Amino acid sequence: MKIVVVGSVAFDNVETPFGKVENVLGGSATFFSVAASFFAPVSVVAVVGQDFPASELEFLRSRGIDTEGIEIAAGRTFRWTGRYHEDMNLRDTLDLQLNVFADFQPKVPRSYREAEICFLSTIHPGLQKSVLGQLGKPRLVGADTMTHWIQQTRGELEALLADVEVLTVNDEEARLLSGERNVVHAARKILALGPKSVLIKRGEYGVLHFSSDSIFAVPAFPLEQVFDPTGAGDAFAGGFIGSLAKSGDFAAPSVRRAIVYGSVMASFAVEDFSLNRLRALDGDDVERRYRQFVALTEF
Amino acid sequence: MKIVVVGSVAFDNVETPFGKVENVLGGSATFFSVAASFFAPVSVVAVVGQDFPASELEFLRSRGIDTEGIEIAAGRTFRWTGRYHEDMNLRDTLDLQLNVFADFQPKVPRSYREAEICFLSTIHPGLQKSVLGQLGKPRLVGADTMTHWIQQTRGELEALLADVEVLTVNDEEARLLSGERNVVHAARKILALGPKSVLIKRGEYGVLHFSSDSIFAVPAFPLEQVFDPTGAGDAFAGGFIGSLAKSGDFAAPSVRRAIVYGSVMASFAVEDFSLNRLRALDGDDVERRYRQFVALTEF
Repeated sequence: MKIVVVGSVAFDNVETPFGKVENVLGGSATFFSVAASFFAPVSVVAVVGQDFPASELEFLRSRGIDTEGIEIAAGRTFRWTGRYHEDMNLRDTLDLQLNVFADFQPKVPRSYREAEICFLSTIHPGLQKSVLGQLGKPRLVGADTMTHWIQQTRGELEALLADVEVLTVNDEEARLLSGERNVVHAARKILALGPKSVLIKRGEYGVLHFSSDSIFAVPAFPLEQVFDPTGAGDAFAGGFIGSLAKSGDFAAPSVRRAIVYGSVMASFAVEDFSLNRLRALDGDDVERRYRQFVALTEF
Repeated sequence: MKIVVVGSVAFDNVETPFGKVENVLGGSATFFSVAASFFAPVSVVAVVGQDFPASELEFLRSRGIDTEGIEIAAGRTFRWTGRYHEDMNLRDTLDLQLNVFADFQPKVPRSYREAEICFLSTIHPGLQKSVLGQLGKPRLVGADTMTHWIQQTRGELEALLADVEVLTVNDEEARLLSGERNVVHAARKILALGPKSVLIKRGEYGVLHFSSDSIFAVPAFPLEQVFDPTGAGDAFAGGFIGSLAKSGDFAAPSVRRAIVYGSVMASFAVEDFSLNRLRALDGDDVERRYRQFVALTEF
């Protein structure tokens, strides 16, 4: 199955306890699409500025990613500058330059419109809705959001959620969206907003998946070196949606395997700055780590 | 196999976001032994004061727990007063009255000495060592510790660890003991101190088990109501050691099942104040939740 993703393609400046990088490739759609490309064809809807290097578009295409929907607009590419604490579950955004993203009006190429799966990375819920409206009838719609949109655009976000099958949020976003501190109560309230299931991402503690009739928990892979958590959630979503697209099957066992593949891709994403680890990865690495997840959790 | 446990038998005053209780049964050896009693015979070494009600000793005996090693000393029973934050991963100790525990010199009854398994709850490592010295040759020695002993009695703790097969610590204790923030590095350093394996308890995020050649991760059971986390770690240890004692087998698959049974018992312990949930529990409840752990994690 073909996947369409909308989100950011960006440059990041990142500082972690292990080092510092500037002007590296980042963005939610980038991490998502590269992670998903290990499983299924992905088409990206995004905007970059005239400063965006052709070589990076070429990298995406080398992964089989369709970049027709990446608009090159007059101006500079979206830039994010962040610093992680020693406890890398915490980070501060030091600077955010929306640049060409400020006026982004997603245009979905005609060739994308029959995609069976759509993933709406964390952008304004009005734009997420607009992308959905430009597609035919995807069989599966996934979405991500974040604190900012929950606080600033709750009405539009709730309107979107009615059309979303699976929502991904982190612990804090789940609490904010639901008004509940307990994760089980929070998940139940989120399901009442529309999604058939919700994935709660807990960073180094793994992920919880709630649907109306089941809960599934996967620990994060215990890594010796978490180098840079940036993009972990997007790589998770990419692996998850990619695996579902590859299987073409949305029944519970397939969803569980997909969540593990999402965890696999997230575990790679954090092993180096930017997408460096994903660039160096092959399918055997992915399968090997999937088996390590089996060994990590089976009893 | 028979288990000997040494630790505290106490009265607790506890306040959580859900309520407040005073003078309720608590203590590490209490939670451990009651949890373990669902699986195997347990004998307790501890001290209480003359204020300790005979009815509570009777409760322990009703669970098949051998209380011969619970000394009744002149004075008052150990009392702990604590308050949990809204984020119940955090708590403050408001008051600690050692009372008869201040001069506790554990005396292991002769009838305990051939126990195959010994668990040393978190007391002064010198006292843990003394209990071990009074036993024959247990086939398995487990131990718990805490920040206070790591900081104040590191030398004695390290001397003890040479004789310990499995150590249980939480995230913070693992970091403090190892000097490492990354959990994989921390575990490796702790193994280098002597234990064959280390269990890192992460509260609502579950538990990680490290041995020289494998890592096992179990999520915590996602509960709708975490009422009072007091004793969760001790109930975990009780279920874990109890299950090992019942199986009489310390090979990896048995250890993994035991860790899940530990998680089962911890999940019950936090559902009510004190040992209230464990008092109301039967073996069917335990097996039902074990199967829920299978359903929660299998893929």
